[in-house]
Amino acid sequence: MRLAKFAGGIAVAHGDGWLRLPQLSGFQSVTRLADIVATDRLRELAEAVERQSTDLDLVAVDLDAAGALIDRDADIWGVGLNYAGHANDLSTPRPASGPGSYLRPGGCLIGNGEHIELPTRTQRVTAEGELGLIIGTTCKNVVRDDWRSVVAGVTTVLDMTAEDVIRENPRYIPWAKGFDTFCSIGPVLVTLDEVDDEALRSVRISTIRNGETIASATPAAMKYDLGYIVEYFSAGRTLRPGTVICTGTPGAAVINPGDTVTAVVEGIGTLTHPVK
Amino acid sequence: MRLAKFAGGIAVAHGDGWLRLPQLSGFQSVTRLADIVATDRLRELAEAVERQSTDLDLVAVDLDAAGALIDRDADIWGVGLNYAGHANDLSTPRPASGPGSYLRPGGCLIGNGEHIELPTRTQRVTAEGELGLIIGTTCKNVVRDDWRSVVAGVTTVLDMTAEDVIRENPRYIPWAKGFDTFCSIGPVLVTLDEVDDEALRSVRISTIRNGETIASATPAAMKYDLGYIVEYFSAGRTLRPGTVICTGTPGAAVINPGDTVTAVVEGIGTLTHPVK
Repeated sequence: MRLAKFAGGIAVAHGDGWLRLPQLSGFQSVTRLADIVATDRLRELAEAVERQSTDLDLVAVDLDAAGALIDRDADIWGVGLNYAGHANDLSTPRPASGPGSYLRPGGCLIGNGEHIELPTRTQRVTAEGELGLIIGTTCKNVVRDDWRSVVAGVTTVLDMTAEDVIRENPRYIPWAKGFDTFCSIGPVLVTLDEVDDEALRSVRISTIRNGETIASATPAAMKYDLGYIVEYFSAGRTLRPGTVICTGTPGAAVINPGDTVTAVVEGIGTLTHPVK
Repeated sequence: MRLAKFAGGIAVAHGDGWLRLPQLSGFQSVTRLADIVATDRLRELAEAVERQSTDLDLVAVDLDAAGALIDRDADIWGVGLNYAGHANDLSTPRPASGPGSYLRPGGCLIGNGEHIELPTRTQRVTAEGELGLIIGTTCKNVVRDDWRSVVAGVTTVLDMTAEDVIRENPRYIPWAKGFDTFCSIGPVLVTLDEVDDEALRSVRISTIRNGETIASATPAAMKYDLGYIVEYFSAGRTLRPGTVICTGTPGAAVINPGDTVTAVVEGIGTLTHPVK
């Protein structure tokens, strides 16, 4: 199943178009992703689509202008330096006993197609395409092999960083990731039943600037795999439905005013943003 | 004015007791701190208390068991290594061109008196008493000297960290700060009109373990003062009402099962937590 946000709500893909949840009996009031990503609720939604779709008109959802997929109050965790290529970019060793991490505020989310603003306090901003996991179940201390049981689906992430700042000192990472417009997530959530482990190992993730692919890899090149990441971030802490975990980037593109930067997770979603 | 959270809502101090906001006409539905901290709204509240209090019974609020002051979805920013004493504790140089920073998830908040749980993935957890600023106004790019215009008030913070983890690599800081039960904020918000600059420079902040003061200092010893901190965190990013900025600690206490740890900001508030 595929979900996206349109102005004012959530839509679910069906056939050649989309159904808006407010059209579906039993789902009229759902506007938050957190309220629909639990396994039971997703199954109810699939059943409702199956039962009710013959009576409903499909609508168009412009994914290139879709709203940020993620609820404003969701936690957005991320893994740093998870692909060897990107760690080499930064001339920095990867942390030895676990992945680097960050948490960013929901206030920096933008919808697909919106401008990225470059803050004045940094001279070198990078954009990174990534695969994102969306948590579907309140969970804590998840065992690595059980990761699929708590994840609703996957999506695309474009993750901006004030790179000159973090090169100076990694203690600046939270600040360097939290500027307004520094995160885009979406436009589509693809539920996990559509992507088996083999598909996830081989899905191509790319960072593209002005049409040129700057970096590209598959999760097979991750140091820390998806199961490890879910175990790591849920260890000792409660993850709530709608939480996102950004799983690291194959490589970063330096962005400047006038550029257009794109994150692609093939078959999952594309995010494109002009830089102001 | 002084505000605290009791089960189910917010209370405002009056005379020798407290008035619960649901008792006050015009404030019955206010349960979120974010909905009451704007300057105008605080003035309306003060006027309502003035007008209506003679007809209302004061109630008791047990501050030692008060709920977490902060809304679950508020951003919780923090400054690292802001007092020389604590940077020396960690045998680490203070970042040169700005304060270290962190953001933590609201899910790690506990109410006053609740147990701190020590996660299994760390062998050395510290607790740090701090002064916290609570943002009252949606703001961005605040100039240092204007910081008072966007801050609603101050409070007490107890900030836990998996210190062995961050000693290994500062890229682990977000993870090391985000465990369940790792943050306590409250029990009282003291509005800024009650504390002038001189009072704020001289307010004593202490970390106490099992009755022994482990560290104590005043904000006069901060490397980055309150105005700087507000300017720094609002630069290029929108801060919303209810956001907290934790301003750094005079010193950290290592905590172990059976300990009781206390954060005191004199005249503002005391937080006490047993360690499980």
